[in-house]
Amino acid sequence: MKQVTFTLSATDGKARRGRIDTPRGDIQTPAFMPVGTAGTVKAMYPEQVRETGADILLGNTYHLMLRPGAERVASLGGLHTFMDWERPILTDSGGFQVMSLSQLRKMSERGVTFKSHIDGSTHELTPERSIEIQTLLDSDIIMQLDECIALPAEHKEMERAMELSLRWADRSKTAFNNQANRALFGIVQGGDAPDLRARSAQGLTSIGFDGYAVGGLAVGEPQEVMFRVLDEIVPELPTDRPHYLMGVGKPDDILGAIGRGIDMFDCVHPTRAGRHGHVYTRFGVINLKNARHKDDHRPIDEASPNRNCRRFSRAYLHHLVKTEEILGAMILSQINLAYYQELVQGARTAIESSRFTDFAAETRAAWAAGDLPTL
Amino acid sequence: MKQVTFTLSATDGKARRGRIDTPRGDIQTPAFMPVGTAGTVKAMYPEQVRETGADILLGNTYHLMLRPGAERVASLGGLHTFMDWERPILTDSGGFQVMSLSQLRKMSERGVTFKSHIDGSTHELTPERSIEIQTLLDSDIIMQLDECIALPAEHKEMERAMELSLRWADRSKTAFNNQANRALFGIVQGGDAPDLRARSAQGLTSIGFDGYAVGGLAVGEPQEVMFRVLDEIVPELPTDRPHYLMGVGKPDDILGAIGRGIDMFDCVHPTRAGRHGHVYTRFGVINLKNARHKDDHRPIDEASPNRNCRRFSRAYLHHLVKTEEILGAMILSQINLAYYQELVQGARTAIESSRFTDFAAETRAAWAAGDLPTL
Repeated sequence: MKQVTFTLSATDGKARRGRIDTPRGDIQTPAFMPVGTAGTVKAMYPEQVRETGADILLGNTYHLMLRPGAERVASLGGLHTFMDWERPILTDSGGFQVMSLSQLRKMSERGVTFKSHIDGSTHELTPERSIEIQTLLDSDIIMQLDECIALPAEHKEMERAMELSLRWADRSKTAFNNQANRALFGIVQGGDAPDLRARSAQGLTSIGFDGYAVGGLAVGEPQEVMFRVLDEIVPELPTDRPHYLMGVGKPDDILGAIGRGIDMFDCVHPTRAGRHGHVYTRFGVINLKNARHKDDHRPIDEASPNRNCRRFSRAYLHHLVKTEEILGAMILSQINLAYYQELVQGARTAIESSRFTDFAAETRAAWAAGDLPTL
Repeated sequence: MKQVTFTLSATDGKARRGRIDTPRGDIQTPAFMPVGTAGTVKAMYPEQVRETGADILLGNTYHLMLRPGAERVASLGGLHTFMDWERPILTDSGGFQVMSLSQLRKMSERGVTFKSHIDGSTHELTPERSIEIQTLLDSDIIMQLDECIALPAEHKEMERAMELSLRWADRSKTAFNNQANRALFGIVQGGDAPDLRARSAQGLTSIGFDGYAVGGLAVGEPQEVMFRVLDEIVPELPTDRPHYLMGVGKPDDILGAIGRGIDMFDCVHPTRAGRHGHVYTRFGVINLKNARHKDDHRPIDEASPNRNCRRFSRAYLHHLVKTEEILGAMILSQINLAYYQELVQGARTAIESSRFTDFAAETRAAWAAGDLPTL
């Protein structure tokens, strides 16, 4: 019996409220998944990640296969034990980072060979090997290997990559071998071409997956292009399976995508932005490097449910950022992850009460009103 | 009435068990003070520092006067509020870092002028200004400004610096103005010359301080020189006041100094060593960069009272160190600070039961026996 299931509990326009059940716990959707690149969500203890409200993490196959190695993680008890995170983990296929980080890539029908960006060693990633690696990591939600290209691109090139990704989807399904305790997600490709996206979605649906991701977005295109693709493609996806928008995004992207029927998100942005002194709040994004915070005794947001937003002055956080103290990265990463969870939690509640449109509008209005006035 | 007092509750040979009471809480001695250089114990939340057992932190006047500035910290409510640490803070005088970090120093009878290592701006530190800064920081234990020179040094040079430090001690006492809610500590100088150290101790005692520090050690001399100086000088210090060995040290230094009558310690070593992949344990120091840990599923020490020593495998910690993940610095700093607290807590208990010598011997024997055998 399949142990990973999706239950849709409410809809509000195109926005959806649901739950993914897995043997390692449930995932309330819409869900934001913090990224634990190399076996750690940067600058956070696993329990601190959980306390922000995260139900699931994302692990990067590319990073983990190179260091410490998938077989090593398996022999150490799997990724959950390795990093002391008991709840579900989704792993990507490794394909995206092969494109963005590795050197001397060679694509073929069989897969991709590349040299590690760490030590130059040669590796091969095929659809089958990607499934094998993700199984060794003991992932709960496995992604098929796909080819992700940058936008804008020629139609012919988008078509070639989409067709290859579809053949790899088929091989992934076979290699996955219908493991009961895990899910396998297919990935819709096709760039910004509606015809290609539709063919990709149809092809994946006829193969049959436990969830459907939209890939190849958040690769440099304007937000309106991303939203247009979602408008076109999400209605083509099976409604009884989760819809996952890979690598997205900023809070405004997430609100827009939830309103277009997306259930799951992941992005390094909140932790990376935190390490660079930016925090996301109900007032919008605040740059703590800015000298306006130097003497500001006020906390980030005294009405926030997050203690870190209330306990430290902006002056202190400015100081930590300016002195490049690790504690600054720790606090600001936590604030951002907590705000992202607050955002998806707010969306979930709003969808349940059929007021998602109002929630999104109110949230955006608060961002637009901006930060507290300068002292 | 004086609100900072010292009570000696037990002695065992030269080792002492005591308690410093302050308006912000008590400090059990022998005490190890983690160093919060620039308003943060690196890579640790304040509550995590407290959970290791620390009763008091050390703040660096030099770093804080340059960034964010003492007047700014005062206007933000003082250092405790600034960094959200409610318990006592000892601040150094700034003199040591002026010597080790700043540029273009100019010493005079009046004080020292120097250029900031951060932005080249010119600053002056006099005994009076140092007291003023530490008062602005709202320090609970204030240190006099002294001149600390490197060893080995000429007798004449050590004498000059000691005499200057003694005159500065007198000016510090006047400037301190007997504030009831804070303590002022004098600093014994005199290098490795017994006659100079004795004259320094006598001079300070006749001025009268709330505590007596031994300065000018841990500046590159062998441990036996440090221990010899302690053997000579600690008996010259008033027994009814705390004895503080500044900037020391490694666990073995601390054991040796407790056995010679020292009550208080501070050192950046545990947090710095943690950031460099070294952890201190009952097995001695373990270098987690070492490839022997790559496949080791065992925790650092499964019998440790510290959860971080039990929950993560050595392989995981090795991975975090090799990938230079912030979480590695966080975990290993915590492990080291917790071990240092475990060490002084063990010493306190042993002194109470008159078995400090056995405790020190057993602890050293366990370090000498070394780490777990390789898997």
